[in-house]
Amino acid sequence: MSRHRLLVIGGDAGGMSAAAQAHRIDDSIEVVVLEQGHDTSFSACGIPYWVGDLVGSRDDLVARTPEEHRRRGLTVHTGTRAEAVDLDACRVSAADGRTFDYDTLLLATGGRPTRPPIEGLDAPGVFGVHRLDDGAAIRSAIDELPRDRPRKAVVLGGGYIGLEMAEVLQLRGLDVDVVLADPLPMGLLDADMGERVCDAMRSMGMGVHTDARVTAVLTGADGRACGVRTDDATFDADLVVLGLGMGPEARLAEAAGLGIGVTGGIDVDATMRSRTHENVFAAGDCVQTYHHLTGEPAHVALGTHANKQGRVAGSVIAGRPARFAGVLGTAITKVGDTEIGRTGLCTTQAEQAGFDFRTDVVEATTRAGYYPGAEDIAVKLVTEAGSGRLLGGQVVGGQGAGKRVDVLATAIWGRMTAEELSESDLSYAPPFSPTYDPVAVAARVVSRAERG
Amino acid sequence: MSRHRLLVIGGDAGGMSAAAQAHRIDDSIEVVVLEQGHDTSFSACGIPYWVGDLVGSRDDLVARTPEEHRRRGLTVHTGTRAEAVDLDACRVSAADGRTFDYDTLLLATGGRPTRPPIEGLDAPGVFGVHRLDDGAAIRSAIDELPRDRPRKAVVLGGGYIGLEMAEVLQLRGLDVDVVLADPLPMGLLDADMGERVCDAMRSMGMGVHTDARVTAVLTGADGRACGVRTDDATFDADLVVLGLGMGPEARLAEAAGLGIGVTGGIDVDATMRSRTHENVFAAGDCVQTYHHLTGEPAHVALGTHANKQGRVAGSVIAGRPARFAGVLGTAITKVGDTEIGRTGLCTTQAEQAGFDFRTDVVEATTRAGYYPGAEDIAVKLVTEAGSGRLLGGQVVGGQGAGKRVDVLATAIWGRMTAEELSESDLSYAPPFSPTYDPVAVAARVVSRAERG
Repeated sequence: MSRHRLLVIGGDAGGMSAAAQAHRIDDSIEVVVLEQGHDTSFSACGIPYWVGDLVGSRDDLVARTPEEHRRRGLTVHTGTRAEAVDLDACRVSAADGRTFDYDTLLLATGGRPTRPPIEGLDAPGVFGVHRLDDGAAIRSAIDELPRDRPRKAVVLGGGYIGLEMAEVLQLRGLDVDVVLADPLPMGLLDADMGERVCDAMRSMGMGVHTDARVTAVLTGADGRACGVRTDDATFDADLVVLGLGMGPEARLAEAAGLGIGVTGGIDVDATMRSRTHENVFAAGDCVQTYHHLTGEPAHVALGTHANKQGRVAGSVIAGRPARFAGVLGTAITKVGDTEIGRTGLCTTQAEQAGFDFRTDVVEATTRAGYYPGAEDIAVKLVTEAGSGRLLGGQVVGGQGAGKRVDVLATAIWGRMTAEELSESDLSYAPPFSPTYDPVAVAARVVSRAERG
Repeated sequence: MSRHRLLVIGGDAGGMSAAAQAHRIDDSIEVVVLEQGHDTSFSACGIPYWVGDLVGSRDDLVARTPEEHRRRGLTVHTGTRAEAVDLDACRVSAADGRTFDYDTLLLATGGRPTRPPIEGLDAPGVFGVHRLDDGAAIRSAIDELPRDRPRKAVVLGGGYIGLEMAEVLQLRGLDVDVVLADPLPMGLLDADMGERVCDAMRSMGMGVHTDARVTAVLTGADGRACGVRTDDATFDADLVVLGLGMGPEARLAEAAGLGIGVTGGIDVDATMRSRTHENVFAAGDCVQTYHHLTGEPAHVALGTHANKQGRVAGSVIAGRPARFAGVLGTAITKVGDTEIGRTGLCTTQAEQAGFDFRTDVVEATTRAGYYPGAEDIAVKLVTEAGSGRLLGGQVVGGQGAGKRVDVLATAIWGRMTAEELSESDLSYAPPFSPTYDPVAVAARVVSRAERG
């Protein structure tokens, strides 16, 4: 009897977690991984910090090399791009002409950076921030710039990647303009919180150009990008960086006839199994997942989820029950000294989900006001009217602000009310918080108001 | 008809919160506060940092002065020490001979620093860390020390105050020996976690002398403390600082005949009302409270609880229902760059409470391993066997470690299991955590082990 073969397409977080987990539980499973690039298990989230020289080398961003995976018993084919899947024949064709049969298929094709149809977007000098090669290309481009004049970068998009790239490009000495179509950066924050982020960016000396529709990337005589044109203005640029968000990369799955969800991600159940093909699983940025609070379909591209989903898929494939419990959309980032966190539903999402809710914002300090390094922090809560159940939280503030979103994420996950959170026993000492932690203060404001 | 009079004994966190809250809800109540010292609403927790010159002035530690309270409509008598309470006559006698009648009495007499009967403990040069005057006295003592020879301090006790004082005395340039009766500092941590703290202190150059019974404070010809003797050794000292813990200051209540609990604190119910005298309330470090998880009596001296309890008492006194929800014993501190947090039950407490439990420890990093400033962090969880319910958590590690205890406190408060915490959506970005936050990693280890 031949071994059961699990074929994995994609060698990053989702794919390798699944591969490793399945193999760990049942080493009689033959695990074969196809990865189009040359890296496995790398941290795309770390690319901005490598560009910013905060991370020493490309190797630092690779958690486990193909060779390390092989030593653990996995077969890994790098430089092997899966071109087509025949779901009936259970066979994958690679671009190099090889074919791979499978008993079980796991798709971990990752995310696809949003690239709107803008003239000039494919010109040299326009960079994505998706794979390690992108990071290397941006680094080279910076290194090659002349030092005898101001160097300029335009970042398109004001989400996480946009903010992070703006920060590190400035760290590298470039003048930075951030151009975004939305009225404010960080679209998953409410406007009042997004304004705080916008102010922080401007106070760092970045140009932040909102409500700006990009009409073209301008190119010079050498064909390289040299600027960005919007409806209203033109921005010079030595390099243009795309931070326009990330959708699911599900083209291979879709072409094969696999069910695709409303978010564009591969349609899987909580065991990460395709809803249309029972011997196909998917994990990571390519899947449609669901919101833990609402049960609604969601797409969130994040290594943490990819890892968990891969582990779930690997367990189920190897015969051990497991479920992915959904996402709250928790996220954290920073720009300069300003930390930003969000979790659960923002106002727009709470409206869309049909909740009767209230919002409250408090301003406090990250440490006791008299302790050195106490910084401003704003905490915004979205709570269900009547029940007081926590639905969402947002924080913007100085050092120590961002990770406070985890308290809110935990409280939301545990279906706690604002009153319960306000009563809970959060830690206090002057170097760490005011007598009441700012998240508890916010919860208390809600519960007082709810009590009328 | 005369106004209802609320008499408050003690003008710090518990007393002033109660006073302010009762007055806010019902300004027909006449609120009279007796405070033996000259400050109200001060941060005792900030004293170490004032001694360490991290806080600029004594005034910074006063959240609200007597005058500010008066402007808000409270009558505040400072320098007025309550000497006796006649519970039948509803009358308090002050040391200066005045008497104050009350309709409702609120006792907020605070904590009493532990002072074992050791020879020489009352000598000049031995300092508590309880009131702002203590901080001023330590500052003066340091300022008066000669600069032409090593200056030495001995700290008695290895709890929070002991650690914090050791840190700041070292910051001020003194050689520091910490002498403690226990086998390890931070007795509310398990031994394996306490060892990490001990190692951190020693690597800072502090002497840490454990299992050491102090037999005498030695005094010089001038009568001032000049050293500490234990069973085994003698330590020179220019100043001796007491950090031996804090019990409830309930002598006034006890002498009056008010019910006292097994912890030595005033016996109150969850509305902060005396169980023996219905027109008497108490709040803050002087009360016996209860553990949120076990319901067992507890005494925890902490400004956060004092504030909350005062607010509850003030509400109830003014006719608005309120309850104090109990404590988890959450605490946080730091020594040098090492942050320490704990919440819920440690091993000893879980045993005492009769739980069938397991413990797990994981070691991780505070940020992505490749990101600058990533530091070691150890997370220990205590969970109920079988159910997997979280009972307690401890963290020791570098910057960013300590406040992670709030995630554990929130999860415990919400009665979550380790599996639920492991599935929850905690934030991730390289400057803030590894792909899985260390607390989620710890929870996952538990839930995997529980699953067998």
